[in-house]
Amino acid sequence: MHIPHGFRFAGVHAGIKKQAQKEDFTLVHCPAGATAAGVYTQNLVFAAPVAFDRARTPASDIRVVAVNSGNANACTGERGTSDAHQMARLAAAAVGAQESQALVMSTGVIGVYLPMDKIAAGATSAAAKLGDDEAAFLSAARGILTTDKGIKVASRTLTIGGREIRLAGMCKGAGMIGPNMATMLGVVTTDAALSPDAAQSALTAAVEESFNCISVEGHMSTNDTVLLLASGAGKPLTTHHSPLTGPDLVTFQIALNELCIELAKQIPDDGEGASHLITIHVQGTKTKDDARRIAQTVANSALVKTAVAGADPNWGRIVSAAGYAGVPFDPAGVDLVVNGHKLYERGAPVPFDARTVSAAIKASRETTIELAFREGTAAIRFWTSDLNVDYVRFNADYTT
Amino acid sequence: MHIPHGFRFAGVHAGIKKQAQKEDFTLVHCPAGATAAGVYTQNLVFAAPVAFDRARTPASDIRVVAVNSGNANACTGERGTSDAHQMARLAAAAVGAQESQALVMSTGVIGVYLPMDKIAAGATSAAAKLGDDEAAFLSAARGILTTDKGIKVASRTLTIGGREIRLAGMCKGAGMIGPNMATMLGVVTTDAALSPDAAQSALTAAVEESFNCISVEGHMSTNDTVLLLASGAGKPLTTHHSPLTGPDLVTFQIALNELCIELAKQIPDDGEGASHLITIHVQGTKTKDDARRIAQTVANSALVKTAVAGADPNWGRIVSAAGYAGVPFDPAGVDLVVNGHKLYERGAPVPFDARTVSAAIKASRETTIELAFREGTAAIRFWTSDLNVDYVRFNADYTT
Repeated sequence: MHIPHGFRFAGVHAGIKKQAQKEDFTLVHCPAGATAAGVYTQNLVFAAPVAFDRARTPASDIRVVAVNSGNANACTGERGTSDAHQMARLAAAAVGAQESQALVMSTGVIGVYLPMDKIAAGATSAAAKLGDDEAAFLSAARGILTTDKGIKVASRTLTIGGREIRLAGMCKGAGMIGPNMATMLGVVTTDAALSPDAAQSALTAAVEESFNCISVEGHMSTNDTVLLLASGAGKPLTTHHSPLTGPDLVTFQIALNELCIELAKQIPDDGEGASHLITIHVQGTKTKDDARRIAQTVANSALVKTAVAGADPNWGRIVSAAGYAGVPFDPAGVDLVVNGHKLYERGAPVPFDARTVSAAIKASRETTIELAFREGTAAIRFWTSDLNVDYVRFNADYTT
Repeated sequence: MHIPHGFRFAGVHAGIKKQAQKEDFTLVHCPAGATAAGVYTQNLVFAAPVAFDRARTPASDIRVVAVNSGNANACTGERGTSDAHQMARLAAAAVGAQESQALVMSTGVIGVYLPMDKIAAGATSAAAKLGDDEAAFLSAARGILTTDKGIKVASRTLTIGGREIRLAGMCKGAGMIGPNMATMLGVVTTDAALSPDAAQSALTAAVEESFNCISVEGHMSTNDTVLLLASGAGKPLTTHHSPLTGPDLVTFQIALNELCIELAKQIPDDGEGASHLITIHVQGTKTKDDARRIAQTVANSALVKTAVAGADPNWGRIVSAAGYAGVPFDPAGVDLVVNGHKLYERGAPVPFDARTVSAAIKASRETTIELAFREGTAAIRFWTSDLNVDYVRFNADYTT
């Protein structure tokens, strides 16, 4: 991985997670300051760090992002708000910045107050270990994990106007799973120079195509946050005074979208117990929002997800899920293709060999569902995981 | 059970289901005609029998309802439409009525044409077995089942204006489960006299409180149908010319609501593999629709359902599900009580003994979740089943 210039990273074990040695506190440090943008959960019940970051992004001079795992600081009332501020102060102090230059993220148990002594110790020890190499980046990526099986990272290097521009991102999330566990978090760093408004627009657009197109079980968390940090330190040195515009910004946007999609897909692929990553491609709707609603309804259908887990080419479940998405369409104009096999065309079943299609689903970790309508030209891709016995075991067999 | 006057019932094995001996064809016959009302699926992908019945209810002189299980006649195009008409003709002919006096319902496999020879044979043999006693009613209740573990029936007897009025209903549904299986169906018969408009209003209101307040996995089927048939034959004999009005109609409505709730709750209680029937009581919202949206979102959360299966008093999952229901509320005004134990009050966690609450969930088949808001005075009760390993097995381990 090529790590963007202008950042330092560290992930340390601060003792917030019970498991010894596991990293649970991460710092992303931008010594010369970074443009920052954020996209947040739309859940009405949102955590203190979400409120904190939402109030100060987009911003032009963020120096540090502190992330803890093991505790979400959610449903913690006024004390939670004050703890989020204190976490920002501690992180800023550890790197010699101001509290106003810090952002914070938390993920883990809901309804428990942050252990501020451990947060303070984590800030100090992480600041001492900051590094700008891949190893440092990967330790930071580990520090944000909760029930994830492994780190989720992606990077891109591209040339814009003769300059090398790097992007590197990390995220976490494997469904809102486990005892009170929650949340998708993401941090994308880049050494492109971006104005705060451009950064916010670019991130919002990228999230629409990526993190807003995934679902494990449709449960929107209290803490979901994606941040974009742009240092403007790409080589040869650019400055904060020449942010990307016009076609250069478009080139950056395309790379950012690809990076975010690569990150986002890793979440349902790691969906607890998932045996299939399901891609749902909806096309031919009037609007993109229509396509998203249909894809999301199919993605959240337990019947569709169990059918994929069982390698059952059960087109009735898919078509009928589309029918209750709340999007008007002509049922006689619907086509369905699963893993390349056409099962349904213009609203009527197509004879197919069920054994062949079942074998195709069973043989591949990835299942592709293509639903085509004849209403317009909008389209979307959406990703989810299947639903099998292991998922339920994981989520039910916790006893307090 | 007291069976309403003016009806005859039969359920027979016509060979539509593969299992020998299992009833799969039902007739409900009203020799002197009945007022009929219907409430139907809102799925855009609706089956031929739904289109057929929807076009002719409310109606004043329905003589026969024919129901087959084992085949939903859904996603079957123009041939499906013609088959539904033919099924109505066959049923009407079997009891000496006109096609225009028949209604039809189907449930079972999607996307397969109705075996019309078996439907014809079923109509003939059912007509020969029609009876007005409880045994006949129960055979009819068996004929509409698909993956249900057993029949779902309920009855009421009340006195209105000095007359004995009877209601008896049957329904089927255990989630939209199994290989392409689908649907909730219900038929409520009464010997009250009702005008078509009053019957439609009464049924719509009752369904709002009952069949529209249940969810197994949130998948709306192609065939959902509830019919109300009112013969007006209550003893001492009333006639079609004196339909219930005013306070008498209110008395009837209350009984109908209770009956429909008793029927509807049996569906999630039979949710495939369900180990808990979950009652979600939402109160203190601005509107009933707000309460329903919140209850439904909680009911459809796989995380809430797995938590109940695992007897985990995981209030974070419940409160955060409410937060993404799309209903505005003040998070600081939320209370949560599970099986009588207060877990959350005015937006903050209440200390509780997790072992005690877990034991309470484990000890009872019924789990009660009470979510109170401080936005208004509306309320709703909603029922669902938990989500456990057996559900997934049942829905995934079918291989084509």
